[in-house]
Parts: sequence; structure tokens; C-alpha cells
Amino acid sequence: MRDSTVFLAKNPKNQYNCYNIDEGVQNMKHSEESTYERILAAAAKLFAKEGYAGTTTRQIVAEANASLASLQLHFKSKENLYYAVVEKTTKFFYTANASILDEINETDKRGLLDKETAWNLLVQLTAKMVEWAFCDEYRYEILLIQRELQNPSEVFEQLPDSLYDMFYYYEKLLKMLVDVKNDFEIKSVCFSVVMTLFDHSNYPRVLGRVLGCDVELPENKERVKVYVKNFMLSAIRTNLDRWNK
Amino acid sequence: MRDSTVFLAKNPKNQYNCYNIDEGVQNMKHSEESTYERILAAAAKLFAKEGYAGTTTRQIVAEANASLASLQLHFKSKENLYYAVVEKTTKFFYTANASILDEINETDKRGLLDKETAWNLLVQLTAKMVEWAFCDEYRYEILLIQRELQNPSEVFEQLPDSLYDMFYYYEKLLKMLVDVKNDFEIKSVCFSVVMTLFDHSNYPRVLGRVLGCDVELPENKERVKVYVKNFMLSAIRTNLDRWNK
Repeated sequence: MRDSTVFLAKNPKNQYNCYNIDEGVQNMKHSEESTYERILAAAAKLFAKEGYAGTTTRQIVAEANASLASLQLHFKSKENLYYAVVEKTTKFFYTANASILDEINETDKRGLLDKETAWNLLVQLTAKMVEWAFCDEYRYEILLIQRELQNPSEVFEQLPDSLYDMFYYYEKLLKMLVDVKNDFEIKSVCFSVVMTLFDHSNYPRVLGRVLGCDVELPENKERVKVYVKNFMLSAIRTNLDRWNK
Repeated sequence: MRDSTVFLAKNPKNQYNCYNIDEGVQNMKHSEESTYERILAAAAKLFAKEGYAGTTTRQIVAEANASLASLQLHFKSKENLYYAVVEKTTKFFYTANASILDEINETDKRGLLDKETAWNLLVQLTAKMVEWAFCDEYRYEILLIQRELQNPSEVFEQLPDSLYDMFYYYEKLLKMLVDVKNDFEIKSVCFSVVMTLFDHSNYPRVLGRVLGCDVELPENKERVKVYVKNFMLSAIRTNLDRWNK
């Protein structure tokens, strides 16, 4: 069920009657392709800043320097455009990290997920997630996801599970690492570590104020990333120690 | 500087030319008092859901079943109303927990903040913060604060330090608990623990989906509170152990 190839194969067209991204892009000329990308980027920025309900298609095309006709051509509706934004970001995560996610699934299927292997995979998964959440290219998309996790819009509620798969990968690995099963606590830890990641990647101004420095500086961002990875892993480690003692 | 009596004495009138809450309320008849409270509650709800920019004074008075004239009488402007909402919530926190906050300041001033005392105060402070963030009465105000921490509005940027004092109390206590000083990591831990609290108190729907249960049920809420308190303390504990070894 949680195989990475399964949700990569989920076609937004089937799920939401959405425009098929890949087919469309392949048939486009360069200028059309960049209009498509500009609209996606503008939508991510405005949805992240103003929310889904607070953003109109007119504002999006103005921001993208495109026409309403081209938005309708590429995405048909604001709702489909929204799903294309979220889909692109999560797809990027799953595609970029297909090897580690497949390894988790494969090792688990073959019954080879012992404690040492599970911990090693957890360390690798955490590092990949930190890279993803701090990726400049997906800044607004990550902000949008966090915004939605905090105060979900109507359309977000209808999103498929792909976003929640991150929690479930942690859960799968954590379950292998604990002797006494406590579903509530295991799931809460997964939630806490994923949210810690989003918090740090999305609060540059507040984090900067607390830290007393500009966290957007490249060198500071690297420190924050290292810190977040260690914090996530040490939080998991403590909880494991507490459960297993 | 960080004495709780100091920021309690910060009068919003001086800071933002805002209507003086206490003076006003005392001179009001019962019906007027409840209009005032209804407007405050409606503003918190709408600011939390739609954002500061996305909310109009007309929407607020409609939600509060009040008139625009009464909003203007009590708060003068949307900006002052916003500050009154945030001020009321943080004031509640500092007033309700004055004894523990004063104890932290007093013990520190007298040079009596040894490791054991600092840890005990940290455990107490954490418990108080969990109670505050999960308090039903301030549900929308807490959601508003988290929303602003994620994606600050123009008015939030001009807020005084009172909200950040929570981070600084943790910082003060943590500094007493570590042998090797590492400002960046100490401040990051403060940020992580406070944000973990906000995450859990504000993501009932997402948390519910991850946990596979309705976290708004009273008994589940109690479990989440206990979990969050333990998670915050164990995250701090691990970091202390790592620094001190």
C-alpha cells in the first residue's frame, strides 16, 4: 500500500480530473513550457502567502505575467492548479528519494528490517527530508504545505495520502525499533519529528529573531539543517530509550 | 529586562496608542462589556482563520453580532483590535503563571539558580505552557499566534517582545543546565520545544489523521498533553546529555 511506486503512479487526472502534467509539457514549445512553470510558481507563492481561499486566478496570472486563458488551458481551474502545485512538490520528494524509500519497502517485505537496518534507514530518510524541506526551489510549496497542515483549506482536506506517507515511513521504521508497541506514542513521535522539520524550514524570520541572527544566510542555513537533523534523530533516540528500558 | 512584572506593565496605549482595556471595561455596564468581549472573540476567530489582511472589520462585527460603531468605540481600528487580541492572550499566560515566572527571575537574580532548581523550574514551566496552549478558551488566539509565527503579517512584525519571552525563559534555564555554552544550539532547542507545543495544540485535524483518532475528544486531548510535555522535556534532556558529556 505504501510502496513509493504506487503513489508515484497515482495520476492526478484520475483522482481529480486534473490536467495531465507530463503529457502536456512534452508537447509544448519552450515558451509555453515556461508559462506553465511560471503559473505553477506564482500559484505556490500566492497560495502560501494568502491561502487558497484568499487567492484568485486573476492574481495568479498577474504574478506569473500570463493570461487567464493560458491558466485555463494548462490547469482548467484554481482547484486543479492547487493540486498540481502540491503534487509537483511531493512527487519531487518521492522521485528524488525513490532509492531509499524503495529500500525501506523492499527490506520490510523481505523481513530483513532488523533494528540496525531500521535505524540506518531512519538516519538516511531524515537527512533526505531535511534537504527537501530546506530546498530553495520549493520554498513556497513547503510553506504552503505547512500552512495547510496548520489550518487546512477545503481543497487540502481532499488531498490523497501522499503527503502523509512521510509520517508512515517513520512509523514503519520506528515500529521495528521498539520492543513494547505503543501506537499512540509512536505516531505522536512521527508527527513531532516531521513538524519540527517544517517549523525550522518555514520560520526564517521568527527563528532569526530567536537565534539573534539572519538564518537566511547560506552558512546559517547549513547550521540550522545540521541542527534539525540532529534534533529529529535525538528526539527519536530518547523516545526509543524510554520505551525499551 | 525579562521580569514578568515589566511586560505586564507594558500598556498597549503607550505602545500602539491603543484603547486602554482595563479602564474601559470597569466603566462599562454589563451589556457593553459583553459586546467588547464578543468583538475580541470574533476578531480572534477570523484573524486565526483568514489572517489579518484577509479579515475586515465588517466581517468581525457581523460575526460578533455588533455594530461597526461599537468596534470603533472600543478599539478605534482593526490594528488596535489585533493588538488587544494578542495582548489579552499573552497577558493571560503571564498573569496565570506569574508565580513561576517571578520565581525564575528571583532565583536567577539572587544567584540561586543551580542545576537542580533550574530543571525543576523548567519542568513546571513546561507544564504551565502545555496547559495554556491547550486551553479551549484561547483556541483561536493560539492558532493566530502560530499562524503569525509561520507567516507573519505586517502588524505582527511590530509586536513587542512579550511573545518571545517564552523562548527566553527556556533559554535562561537551559543556560544554567549546560556546562559548555553553545548559544546557537541552546536557542534552537528553545525554539523547537516551544514550536512542538504550538504544533500539537493547533493541528487537531492533521494530528487526528496521523494518530488515526479524534484528538478533539477530551480523553485524547489529555493524552496528547501528557505526550507533548514528556516530548518537550525529553528533547531538552537529550540535548543536555549530549552537551554535557
